[in-house]
Amino acid sequence: MKAAIFNEPGNMSVTDMAKPKIQAPHDAIIRVVRACVCGSDLWWYRGISDKTKGSQTGHEAIGIVEEVGSAVKNVQKGDFVIVPFTNGCGHCAACKAGFDGDCATFTGGALGFQAEYLRYVSADWGLVKIPGQPGDYSADMLKSFTTLADVMATGYHAAFTAEVKPGDTVVVVGDGAVGLCGVIGAKLLGAERIIMMSRHKDRQELAIEFGATDIVAERGDAGIQRVMALTGEGADAVLECIGSQLAVETAVQLARPGAVVGRVRVPHIDELDTNKLFWKNIGLRGGRAAVSTHDRSVLLDAVLEGRINPGKVFNMAFELDDVQAAYAAMDERKAIKSLLVISE
Amino acid sequence: MKAAIFNEPGNMSVTDMAKPKIQAPHDAIIRVVRACVCGSDLWWYRGISDKTKGSQTGHEAIGIVEEVGSAVKNVQKGDFVIVPFTNGCGHCAACKAGFDGDCATFTGGALGFQAEYLRYVSADWGLVKIPGQPGDYSADMLKSFTTLADVMATGYHAAFTAEVKPGDTVVVVGDGAVGLCGVIGAKLLGAERIIMMSRHKDRQELAIEFGATDIVAERGDAGIQRVMALTGEGADAVLECIGSQLAVETAVQLARPGAVVGRVRVPHIDELDTNKLFWKNIGLRGGRAAVSTHDRSVLLDAVLEGRINPGKVFNMAFELDDVQAAYAAMDERKAIKSLLVISE
Repeated sequence: MKAAIFNEPGNMSVTDMAKPKIQAPHDAIIRVVRACVCGSDLWWYRGISDKTKGSQTGHEAIGIVEEVGSAVKNVQKGDFVIVPFTNGCGHCAACKAGFDGDCATFTGGALGFQAEYLRYVSADWGLVKIPGQPGDYSADMLKSFTTLADVMATGYHAAFTAEVKPGDTVVVVGDGAVGLCGVIGAKLLGAERIIMMSRHKDRQELAIEFGATDIVAERGDAGIQRVMALTGEGADAVLECIGSQLAVETAVQLARPGAVVGRVRVPHIDELDTNKLFWKNIGLRGGRAAVSTHDRSVLLDAVLEGRINPGKVFNMAFELDDVQAAYAAMDERKAIKSLLVISE
Repeated sequence: MKAAIFNEPGNMSVTDMAKPKIQAPHDAIIRVVRACVCGSDLWWYRGISDKTKGSQTGHEAIGIVEEVGSAVKNVQKGDFVIVPFTNGCGHCAACKAGFDGDCATFTGGALGFQAEYLRYVSADWGLVKIPGQPGDYSADMLKSFTTLADVMATGYHAAFTAEVKPGDTVVVVGDGAVGLCGVIGAKLLGAERIIMMSRHKDRQELAIEFGATDIVAERGDAGIQRVMALTGEGADAVLECIGSQLAVETAVQLARPGAVVGRVRVPHIDELDTNKLFWKNIGLRGGRAAVSTHDRSVLLDAVLEGRINPGKVFNMAFELDDVQAAYAAMDERKAIKSLLVISE
């Protein structure tokens, strides 16, 4: 089969390799229909974080179940499924509490989804079934399903852990695909006013289409002052969708006393002066998204019913053979997020 | 009037000074009935933090309104009131959100409550009226009212910000008066299992009387292992009632994925590795208690109806003239908390 691999920073290619096989009772082999490139992939693509040369890439996909291990009862060959970047078992304390991104049973982590076939290790509970088959849906709908493997669930997790409530004023820090999906998440949870901090016209427009009511283009202190001018004493909830030290510190400054900052991007920060949180009763929550939980409880229905269209974050699409171009488009900020069309 | 003053670390005395006067429209002058010594007073009593020599002390009291400023409408001369250590205005964003400990209008901070009279700067909304007069209540009831000025509201705030829900398993870190009141707070919010970490027999007994179901006497790694053995994968909520770096870091380790740590003691920490929070979706919340809010919404009724008896944290009582002994008893851990009986 064909699979994308990482050669060195800035250099991806597609290679032929053996199709994955069932290795454990909870495995499933999935024929990939759509995959995509994640903003977090750019950390190693840019050489900022390490990744083994020659290793497979990708952790978001939708596809068709090709084969399941002996312990898998809830999905079967032929099912159309969302393949989360997380692996939930459904019965450990984390999964039962609705935080399957922190599952204690399957702690590996997804890899190799940018390929014609993938092996998923927690198929019984982790996979999220989509009714029907890919051919039953439009290309746009397939894009939206693909976001449910990570980016939309992650944006929703930011709003969920920031404890967005009906009527809230929410600020979203970060106008990448996660932040844009955070706007959708905040709206799903009833936010009345959603302020997106963004300097890019295409992302500003998509944020407004997704439900943002205000755009703040200023950065740094000017951005903070602008949000304060709009909110009075800060936002009821802040979604931190970047992961840098500056973004987290900015998010804390945008929050009113008692508000919660929800963060979902892999943190690239050292230590935080948490006294600043204490003296304003600011909460800091968040982590890896609970993908299977959020998809089943809220997001899949919202997509199926056409209430949300997160697939619009894919403004560029590529074939698997063009994986280098898919990464380059995101690296150069031409693509908000790059879709990989693998099969139908 | 008589008032306690700080001379130098380890040395308190009582001096004569002018009775306070109304200085601003929102002021009230209160004749103090009961005051007390706070665990946070020990930081400067022990010379760990700075305090101006010769300055007045104390920030918890109940008393009778003696005089009010021109803007004060909700309380009047003769009212029996709880005098919170916080100053809420009732109409800023923090107060409206239920976090009056972070009021944006009155930012001063309480001082001089260990005296025959005190001046309170946000009387209209901040003071919490108690029905009747002190003579209508038992000495024990007066003790419980006194805890509503700080320690009981602070313990409740730990449980509230840790988002304790019915059926939860909760761990309380810190067996001082705040932690003990945290047990009461967790029980009020419906916790089913409350694990108190305590090495002191008198405090263990009081914790159990207040609603703790398990005592963990081990400290450090052994304590963490014991809690894990009791809970499986950590607690649903953790109340951090010490404020040290070690206590916060321990609290994070005791939490199951997705749980929230509520902390309420003035933090004596530098920086925190918040990545440990992220990778288990652990939340960190808390700050200064919302005393007026918690008292009015939950705590005063619970005391009046005899459902809670937080006054039991006062296992020693002193007259104002003996303020040095009141501090020494707490410093030497003879007293869990020292009551000051000022008038009737």
